[in-house]
Amino acid sequence: METEMPQAEARRTRSGGRSARRALRSAPDLSMLPALRRNLPPCEVMDPSQVERIDAASMAILEEVGVVFRDPVALADWRRVGADVRGERVHLDRGLVRELIATIPATFTYRARNPDRSLPFGGPHAIFVPMTGAPYLRDLDDVRRLPTLADLEMFHKLAHMSPALHSTAHHIVEPMDVKVSHRHLHITYSSMKHSDKTFMGMTTSPRNAEDVMEMCAILFGEDVMEETPVVTGNCNGNSPLVWDEVMLGAMRAFCRRNQPVLCSPFVLGGANTPASVAPAVAQLNAEALSALAYTQVVRKGCPAIYGHYLSTVSMKSGAPMAGTPEISLMNFMIGQMARFYGVPWRTSSLLGGAKTFDAQAGYESATTLSAVLHAGANYIWHAAGWNEAGMHCSVAKFVVDAEQCAMGYRLAEGIRWDDFDEALAAVRDVGPGGHYLGHPHTQANFERAFFMPRLFDNNSIEQWQAEGSQEITARALAHARRLLSEYEEPRLDEGVDEALRDYMARRMREIPAVDALNNEY
Amino acid sequence: METEMPQAEARRTRSGGRSARRALRSAPDLSMLPALRRNLPPCEVMDPSQVERIDAASMAILEEVGVVFRDPVALADWRRVGADVRGERVHLDRGLVRELIATIPATFTYRARNPDRSLPFGGPHAIFVPMTGAPYLRDLDDVRRLPTLADLEMFHKLAHMSPALHSTAHHIVEPMDVKVSHRHLHITYSSMKHSDKTFMGMTTSPRNAEDVMEMCAILFGEDVMEETPVVTGNCNGNSPLVWDEVMLGAMRAFCRRNQPVLCSPFVLGGANTPASVAPAVAQLNAEALSALAYTQVVRKGCPAIYGHYLSTVSMKSGAPMAGTPEISLMNFMIGQMARFYGVPWRTSSLLGGAKTFDAQAGYESATTLSAVLHAGANYIWHAAGWNEAGMHCSVAKFVVDAEQCAMGYRLAEGIRWDDFDEALAAVRDVGPGGHYLGHPHTQANFERAFFMPRLFDNNSIEQWQAEGSQEITARALAHARRLLSEYEEPRLDEGVDEALRDYMARRMREIPAVDALNNEY
Repeated sequence: METEMPQAEARRTRSGGRSARRALRSAPDLSMLPALRRNLPPCEVMDPSQVERIDAASMAILEEVGVVFRDPVALADWRRVGADVRGERVHLDRGLVRELIATIPATFTYRARNPDRSLPFGGPHAIFVPMTGAPYLRDLDDVRRLPTLADLEMFHKLAHMSPALHSTAHHIVEPMDVKVSHRHLHITYSSMKHSDKTFMGMTTSPRNAEDVMEMCAILFGEDVMEETPVVTGNCNGNSPLVWDEVMLGAMRAFCRRNQPVLCSPFVLGGANTPASVAPAVAQLNAEALSALAYTQVVRKGCPAIYGHYLSTVSMKSGAPMAGTPEISLMNFMIGQMARFYGVPWRTSSLLGGAKTFDAQAGYESATTLSAVLHAGANYIWHAAGWNEAGMHCSVAKFVVDAEQCAMGYRLAEGIRWDDFDEALAAVRDVGPGGHYLGHPHTQANFERAFFMPRLFDNNSIEQWQAEGSQEITARALAHARRLLSEYEEPRLDEGVDEALRDYMARRMREIPAVDALNNEY
Repeated sequence: METEMPQAEARRTRSGGRSARRALRSAPDLSMLPALRRNLPPCEVMDPSQVERIDAASMAILEEVGVVFRDPVALADWRRVGADVRGERVHLDRGLVRELIATIPATFTYRARNPDRSLPFGGPHAIFVPMTGAPYLRDLDDVRRLPTLADLEMFHKLAHMSPALHSTAHHIVEPMDVKVSHRHLHITYSSMKHSDKTFMGMTTSPRNAEDVMEMCAILFGEDVMEETPVVTGNCNGNSPLVWDEVMLGAMRAFCRRNQPVLCSPFVLGGANTPASVAPAVAQLNAEALSALAYTQVVRKGCPAIYGHYLSTVSMKSGAPMAGTPEISLMNFMIGQMARFYGVPWRTSSLLGGAKTFDAQAGYESATTLSAVLHAGANYIWHAAGWNEAGMHCSVAKFVVDAEQCAMGYRLAEGIRWDDFDEALAAVRDVGPGGHYLGHPHTQANFERAFFMPRLFDNNSIEQWQAEGSQEITARALAHARRLLSEYEEPRLDEGVDEALRDYMARRMREIPAVDALNNEY
């Protein structure tokens, strides 16, 4: 996808000529953008006393209400570090919580298999990660159906070719043609094989998480993993205030190998939180802190990310909604809390609840993107393809969202001042009533000055009609087909590839091929 | 349209019962929301030294390059106050500019004909105003065609019934069945007649502006107009650095009667400004300041609004683009400049360049809405219906945008803390693993807690299919029809109505009915 990024521009040879510009337009630069370094001030919707009020409320919840850890290992771990454990309920003293989370690194570097695609993370740095977990897709013909492994591979290729997507994630769609118990192996392999960007690791069971760790060790080496993160897991909480055995076991598998998990309370505002923005954040914050603290019980100093999945619930259908104002407000607040604790944080973006890629999906997606950029999130997940409340990943939406990420990237970079004086000289040259199109400053700067979305049509209606009156879905699908036809697989070392395949083959022999997930695997 | 606003809620009778809630949902509250009082901190993308850098650059442009006023009256006015006038070019000393703009009121109250719909304006207060000027519409059948006066009346009715729209504007669409030279009379009358909200006045010529003033005097009385604004005009500049006779004459007509105009440079970034964000804002700022200063030459102390129309230009088609990151950044900057000068400011929002109401329109519209809310704009214009770069007003988009304004309103209100302790008590009651739906706090707060967009579908796909698989355009058009079927005209005093009609009749006898606008009329 063509981008108009300063960075992308810097990599290009500049000739300034018209034909060079035309060539640029027809030969899009698919290089990955560096991790976003945010220059947009975060939206501080709370004053410092309100931040402290949320903190105090969360700490009171942790101390007085407690958090259920439905997992004997975690309960033993908590007892070991002196927490007040009553049955499955762990009461966490605020002093202990603060002491534990203090060792979470504020920043680190994600190692990608292509070192040029490694990413600084945390603080001002943010990355965009595609959606995951869709049980359906809308395919290259916009048909809604069950996905296959080939569909997942297609999405990994599209993520690889989208400059502003910094990761291929993992199971963007569920490969339904692979037995559930073997799925994590194929998903992980596809992420590793079809892109050299960073990716995510399955946490569907503790044993599956171990398999991901083993495959990462084959790809990167144990030593590298000890040094720096190479993969990201996600552990959802059961709000209110419960963490279960599967998630905690997977979390331990990642923490022990020094790999970060997103500690993600799963919040449906009004259903599993109070029906009010600030108290819902107080509960979510307590939940996130309890899991963040636990990562440091498992391994002091291992990276961990403040997470959440966050939605408000439709009074009409009970379904999660996207793009509502309270979701934006909660993101601003969560960002403030994560910065208060000095921990990098994850959010979700470009979410749609629409059944098709219609205007609803556009409003919802752009609203959540804008919110998380102003909130200052670090790990911007679900940032391409999400529609129907996550029930399907849309190919058309995926490529449009990926371009939206590039636009959001530009926004969050803030203002450039490097040509300010030169451009003011152009104002003098041109003078009242003149025009700038022919001025040398314009010719030298036009392409990097203003982002031109490739998938938005800004032609006149006459020209649009002459080109077939295509709405954005049709244009996006044509673009996705074109991208896929140009896909080049980033070479994976043959020895590594073989070792990965051997590992998978062995594990597939060991793991019974079943349709329902057995938590032992 | 149903809203979930605290204010709207406060006006309702609360019973707490299920049937009452159901009744509430089926009987939407169409009362206008008060002017938004913004609690969201503005996005300050420049530090104070950068604000001063823009100011200094703009002042240097005004002093050294100068601004062309293509209007003998304005040139004489400028000479009178001691400006350095060379031909048509006026060089404005920064001391003079600062002295002049210092008398612009930072805040004032818009008087509506229904005093309950009068609006505080400026500072933290913002209002949403529909789009204007569309030469086409997409109608209730989504057919693109030339508009009639009946279509304009329809849009005025829809604006009247949209709680978050604070104004009916003026020529939302151009009534093509009315002779051009008589159009301003019919447009003004329709705004006055079909709604009791505030509205805009035509500035298509100095004489047309005088007609608007006369009709306002009939509706409100001369005394009221001397006291406080009752209408808003818009005067576009010809960037770079030119103001023409028509606009300046219309501006004078408004200023003399103490009515505010939007002083709006018309910026197509890269075409009539430098191809760079910060210098483009420096030029725009100089242009806006020159007109703002002139309003105070005409009448010291009269209200005036820092305006702009702002787009970036597609390299491909030369067409203006919407929802691009640079437009958002420029809005943040302009907001900072307007606050620096202590002048209320206008922006544009919910703009689309799409040819239909597809996902492109959704992304573009939501992106501009979010940007202007974070920018802290006061007069949020073009906030409903704008698509195809302003070439058409879409009925479907109009009602969806109006709901988006209600959502943006909620966002910008910020966080409520009034039930914080009560809700935390609910966290204790519910405890780990519980659910909140049955809790008294949830039942008492659900409706005001989370905005539920009426025009977004959040049902399951099965339910959506059972309801006819309608995309948002179809749902929105059905909603618009329903609204129109329930429209009740706000009573206009019969004597006033007759006086307005008499005035129009007299003027139509005086003004030749022509198809091309004669600037004398």
